[in-house]
Amino acid sequence: MENFRLFLVLFVSALSVGFVSIVFVIRWVLYFKEGLAWDGGLAEFNWHPLLVVIGFIFLQGLAIIVYRLPWTWKWSKLRMKFIHAGLNILAFVLAVISLVAVFDFHNAANIPNMYSLHSWVGLAAVILYALQLVLGLAVYLVPATPGFVRAALMPIHVYGGLLIFSSVIATALMGITEKLIFGLKDPKYKDSPPEAVFVNVLGVLLSVFGGLILWIATRPQWKRPSDNQLRLAHSDDLTPAPGANGSASMTTGQELSGEARRRGAGKAEEAAAGKSSI
Amino acid sequence: MENFRLFLVLFVSALSVGFVSIVFVIRWVLYFKEGLAWDGGLAEFNWHPLLVVIGFIFLQGLAIIVYRLPWTWKWSKLRMKFIHAGLNILAFVLAVISLVAVFDFHNAANIPNMYSLHSWVGLAAVILYALQLVLGLAVYLVPATPGFVRAALMPIHVYGGLLIFSSVIATALMGITEKLIFGLKDPKYKDSPPEAVFVNVLGVLLSVFGGLILWIATRPQWKRPSDNQLRLAHSDDLTPAPGANGSASMTTGQELSGEARRRGAGKAEEAAAGKSSI
Repeated sequence: MENFRLFLVLFVSALSVGFVSIVFVIRWVLYFKEGLAWDGGLAEFNWHPLLVVIGFIFLQGLAIIVYRLPWTWKWSKLRMKFIHAGLNILAFVLAVISLVAVFDFHNAANIPNMYSLHSWVGLAAVILYALQLVLGLAVYLVPATPGFVRAALMPIHVYGGLLIFSSVIATALMGITEKLIFGLKDPKYKDSPPEAVFVNVLGVLLSVFGGLILWIATRPQWKRPSDNQLRLAHSDDLTPAPGANGSASMTTGQELSGEARRRGAGKAEEAAAGKSSI
Repeated sequence: MENFRLFLVLFVSALSVGFVSIVFVIRWVLYFKEGLAWDGGLAEFNWHPLLVVIGFIFLQGLAIIVYRLPWTWKWSKLRMKFIHAGLNILAFVLAVISLVAVFDFHNAANIPNMYSLHSWVGLAAVILYALQLVLGLAVYLVPATPGFVRAALMPIHVYGGLLIFSSVIATALMGITEKLIFGLKDPKYKDSPPEAVFVNVLGVLLSVFGGLILWIATRPQWKRPSDNQLRLAHSDDLTPAPGANGSASMTTGQELSGEARRRGAGKAEEAAAGKSSI
C-alpha cells in the first residue's frame, strides 16, 4: 500500500477521535444530564445522542472505510461485503432505536414531533440510509444481480453513502445546537457554562471524525485492489489454474457456478468503483 | 463530454435550487423579519444569512464546478483559474461582511460572541477558506511555483475546498436552527408557524444545492480535459507546431517563457488532479 504509514496515522486518528466522541457523549448524558433510562422522560431522550454517535456516526464511519484496511485485503471480497453490510445494519438498528427514544419522549411530554430542520434532515437521512441498505443488499449481495447493474449503480452507492454520512454529522451538529439552547436555562447557552463548552467540543470532534473518514474513503491510492490485482500479487501462493478470463483461479469445483457468477459481476463492479474514486 | 444532457440537467437544477434559495432568504429577511439596514439592530443581523447564502454557499458552489462547464473548455486554463479565484474571493469578501454584521449586532445588543457551535464551526470554515485562498493563489497562480508542489498539493486543495463547502452548509443549517428558536416566540418554533416551515424548506434547499454541487464536482468523466487532450481533439483548428513535449502548440513567441513555465507546472497539476478525482 502506498503511504501505509500515513494511512495508519489517519486511521488511528479517526478511531481515536471517534472513541473520544463516544466518551464525550457518555459523559454528557451521565454527568451533565439526567443519565439513561427508558421511562418516557429526559433520561430516555438521552439514548438519542448516545446511540446516534455510537451507531449512525462511529459505526457508519467504520463501515465506509472497512474495505480500505490493507490487512483485510487477503480476505475474500464477499467476507468484506458481509462486514460492511453488518456494520451498516447495526448502525441502522441503533439509529431506529434512537428515533424511538425521541418520539417516546416527545409524546410523553406533549412536544410536537418533526417540526425542526434537525428532524427533517435527520429523518430524510434515516430513510435514505434504509433505501441504501436495501438497494445495497439487493444489488451487491444477491448473486443473480448482473454485473452491469452493479457497475452502473456503484457510483451512486458510493456517493450516496458519503452524502448520507455527511448529512448525519450535519444533523448531529443541529441536534447539539437545539439541545444546548433548550437544555441550558440558568446559566444559558450564551453564558458558556462548562456543559456548553464541553458539548461544543463534542461537535468539533464529530466534524473532525467526519473529515478524516471522508479523506480516507476518497483517496484513490488506498482503494482495495481488485481481485485480479491481488491474485497477480500473490500468484506464487496459488494453484495456477486461471479460467479463460482469469477470474476462477481461487474457486473450487462445487462452488463454481454461484461463485463464478458473483465474480463476473464483481469484476464489473470493481471496474466501476475504480473509475469513480468517490 | 460523456452524458452531456445529464450534466446539463444537474447543472441547471443546481443553479435553480441555488437561485430559489436566494429568493427564500430574501423573502425571509424582508417579509418575515425586520428587513435590511446597517444600524446595529436585527435588520443589520439579517445581512448575515443573506450574504452567506449568496456568497459563501451559492458563489462558492459555482466556483467549485466552474472548470467542469464544457463550454469553457476552449478557454485557457489560466482564464478559468482567474474565474475560479475571482468567484472565491468575492464569496470570501461577502462572508467577511456577513461576520461583521453579526458581531456588530451582538455587540450592540450585549449578546456574547463565539459561544455557539454554529460560531465555532463557522469561524473555522472562514479561517480555512482564507488559508485555502492564499495557498491556492500562491501555488496555482504564481508562475514560479514548481510543478511538483502544485501536483502534491492538488488533492489537498480539492478535498479542502469540498470539505469547507460542506462545513459551510452544515453551519448554515445550525444557524437556521438557532435563529428559528431565538426568533420565534409566540408562536414558537415547535408550533410550526409559517416562518418555521418556510425557513426549514430553505435549509432543505441548501442541502440539496450542496448535494448537487458535490455530485457534479466529483464525477471523473466531467473533469475538464487536460490541455493536451484538448489540443489533440482540436488539432485541425491549430497551426501544427507542437514542442518536444507537445505542450507549446498554442503559444506565441513573446509569451513563451512565462507561459511555457506555467504549462510545465500545469501538466503536473493536471496529472495530479486526474489521479485523484476528488
